[in-house]
Amino acid sequence: MTANRRQMKLGAFLWATGHHIAAWRHPNAHVTAGIDIDHYIQLARTAEAAKFDLIFCEDAAGLREANIAIASQTSRSIGFEPISLLAALAAQTSHIGLVATASTSYNEPYGLARAFSSLDQISGGRSGWNLVTSASHIEAANFGSTGLRPHSDRYERAREFATVVAGLWHGDGANALNHDGRNFSVRDPLDLPPSPQGAPVMVQAGASDEGRDLAARTADVVFTAAQTFEEAKAFYDDLKARLVACGREPDDIKIMPGVAPVVAASEAEARAKVDELQELIPDDVGVALLSSYLSTDLSAYPVDGPLPELPATEGMQSRQALVVEQSRRDNLSIRQLARHFAGARGHWRVVGTPAQIADELQARFEGGAADGFNVMPSYFPGELDAFATLVVPELQRRGLFRQDYEGRTLREHLGLKKPVRK
Amino acid sequence: MTANRRQMKLGAFLWATGHHIAAWRHPNAHVTAGIDIDHYIQLARTAEAAKFDLIFCEDAAGLREANIAIASQTSRSIGFEPISLLAALAAQTSHIGLVATASTSYNEPYGLARAFSSLDQISGGRSGWNLVTSASHIEAANFGSTGLRPHSDRYERAREFATVVAGLWHGDGANALNHDGRNFSVRDPLDLPPSPQGAPVMVQAGASDEGRDLAARTADVVFTAAQTFEEAKAFYDDLKARLVACGREPDDIKIMPGVAPVVAASEAEARAKVDELQELIPDDVGVALLSSYLSTDLSAYPVDGPLPELPATEGMQSRQALVVEQSRRDNLSIRQLARHFAGARGHWRVVGTPAQIADELQARFEGGAADGFNVMPSYFPGELDAFATLVVPELQRRGLFRQDYEGRTLREHLGLKKPVRK
Repeated sequence: MTANRRQMKLGAFLWATGHHIAAWRHPNAHVTAGIDIDHYIQLARTAEAAKFDLIFCEDAAGLREANIAIASQTSRSIGFEPISLLAALAAQTSHIGLVATASTSYNEPYGLARAFSSLDQISGGRSGWNLVTSASHIEAANFGSTGLRPHSDRYERAREFATVVAGLWHGDGANALNHDGRNFSVRDPLDLPPSPQGAPVMVQAGASDEGRDLAARTADVVFTAAQTFEEAKAFYDDLKARLVACGREPDDIKIMPGVAPVVAASEAEARAKVDELQELIPDDVGVALLSSYLSTDLSAYPVDGPLPELPATEGMQSRQALVVEQSRRDNLSIRQLARHFAGARGHWRVVGTPAQIADELQARFEGGAADGFNVMPSYFPGELDAFATLVVPELQRRGLFRQDYEGRTLREHLGLKKPVRK
Repeated sequence: MTANRRQMKLGAFLWATGHHIAAWRHPNAHVTAGIDIDHYIQLARTAEAAKFDLIFCEDAAGLREANIAIASQTSRSIGFEPISLLAALAAQTSHIGLVATASTSYNEPYGLARAFSSLDQISGGRSGWNLVTSASHIEAANFGSTGLRPHSDRYERAREFATVVAGLWHGDGANALNHDGRNFSVRDPLDLPPSPQGAPVMVQAGASDEGRDLAARTADVVFTAAQTFEEAKAFYDDLKARLVACGREPDDIKIMPGVAPVVAASEAEARAKVDELQELIPDDVGVALLSSYLSTDLSAYPVDGPLPELPATEGMQSRQALVVEQSRRDNLSIRQLARHFAGARGHWRVVGTPAQIADELQARFEGGAADGFNVMPSYFPGELDAFATLVVPELQRRGLFRQDYEGRTLREHLGLKKPVRK
């Protein structure tokens, strides 16, 4: 509880009805949350009152599921476009950071840099861009007929895209950028001056070798998925080593793994909450969701049998590997893996009392496996409220999380340097 | 003053410091208005309190002036990206329509349709998209090295773009769009359901033959520039005839020419306000701005001489013609034309008392030359306040403008049918 103790960073990952696949079937869930701006305003204010560093919004330019059976059995397939959502939330909040996902495959760097700079001005220096290269065939089909491009091509474009955006955000605004590259040609400086935080925060979540390399060179924050402490620690050490190899300091990137907490006054009550949600997942939906994530149709395999060998695909290679690894490690059947995966989308789930959850977070934080966490409540607003009112005060009591904001910008919350325009 | 009298529609065209080129030099102007969200919130609330149908934001993905001498002598070159701006304003207003400009040349239809649908949901059915094909070489240089594409190519892409967007907005959301065209290939339905107004309002401003044709087939609102009653009337009649030829009803499009009003309690006072602004325009800036608009360098011609013959360009062909026509008609020197043009950007300027301005608007409205007007104040907030407090009440007294909103959506304000998804 010393004044200068290192404190963890917390993100609130907002996603429509909730992160659990069956969230919309929960009796306390808000089924049309994805298109209810007042719902999002309420969540943002809850997170801000609890002093979260940021709220985070995923995105995909298309339906979230190719399988119409899944799409019609979740409420995830509808939702706001993130820039407009976060701009509206900027006008209803004063401190919390606002991070939106946007694709390097289906945008142009000048347009994207402008939109995030604009959000940064509107919010007084609170915006962040989560760079994704878009691994889904569904989006590809809405942006031309050529299909999903190979992983390495997407990353080659993403690298150049990130270079251009950084040039626009960090340039002096008076001189032309004059970028002329393989994918993009961009002449002018940006038509917006620096915000109070200098430039939007750059967030990434790619876990492949190419993804980690790009993050080490350009990211301020990295979201990641890790089931075990060892996985989280290995990722953390690897990325910080790459960072140093790029001439940056270890603290220049905040690594924030996803965590799906289920908290209650007693452990038994928390377990009962998990079971209630897991039982709401129909087998066919769980298996179809897992099939979609692994880009492999599992419906023909026995649901009580093990996961078959998978072919390599152009999808999320590194995250697939984590799921496969877990199924082998825990000797899970397809049904068990499907339910487990559907419940937390491959992220780390912690279940228990506020003290138990704080113990788990503290162990990874102090063990050098995380700089903070991206919190993924199973359904909204109930489980965000529970985390904010039960877990956050426990973390504060332990001196592991701020009692109040010390600054106004997202970079100040995260302890990141303010970039100087060159 | 009968209850069912046809009433005019009013847009408030918000643009940073103001529409007059020298607005930023005015002693009462707000120089950094372009990046001050509280300034925009104040303007939106002023327009909403005065019962305007909508606020309108122009856009260009780049600096507004290629000539750095002009760019550094105006405050127009910085400003918010419109989707983020209008989403923030949506959260701070309740009734007024929110129309943003976006380009068919530098966006993809699926992404653009999502952003405007999202703004439509966030605002409860108040969004509109002003389709532009982007005639500026400046933007082209920020989106690839191939340069500005020919006018007809841009319109061919725009037509297909508008078709895809309309398909996404008006489709039933359950069936695939399966568009496979020359420029775009888009498979899925949109991931957002219809807003309370059914779909965003489609706005256009193209005045060329191809532009009018596209508007007649797809637009709900058309902004236009016309100096004289005759020009306005000719445009109005032509577009309504094209509309009928497309099988639509004359009232399916609202034609709203731009108007740059300068109002004061007495005519002498209003004239003095104009003169004060005009004298703030340096000759070199006025000539450079006119050169930029006409895509012709006029700096080598005698500033007291007439406009030279101009070559045809790929820029805004039809609007150029209006400016040239005015210089011939009024026998203006380059300096006079430059000052006149710089002051109102080629739009109709009306100067006088509230009654005089109401007379002018009423004549065009009742003479069948306009369904309403897009109001372009010379500087903000002063001249918007003046219009809202002096001219609007005069129009209301005459029964020419609403006393209060009757509906909540932009389509309801404009008297447009709510589209039914097929």
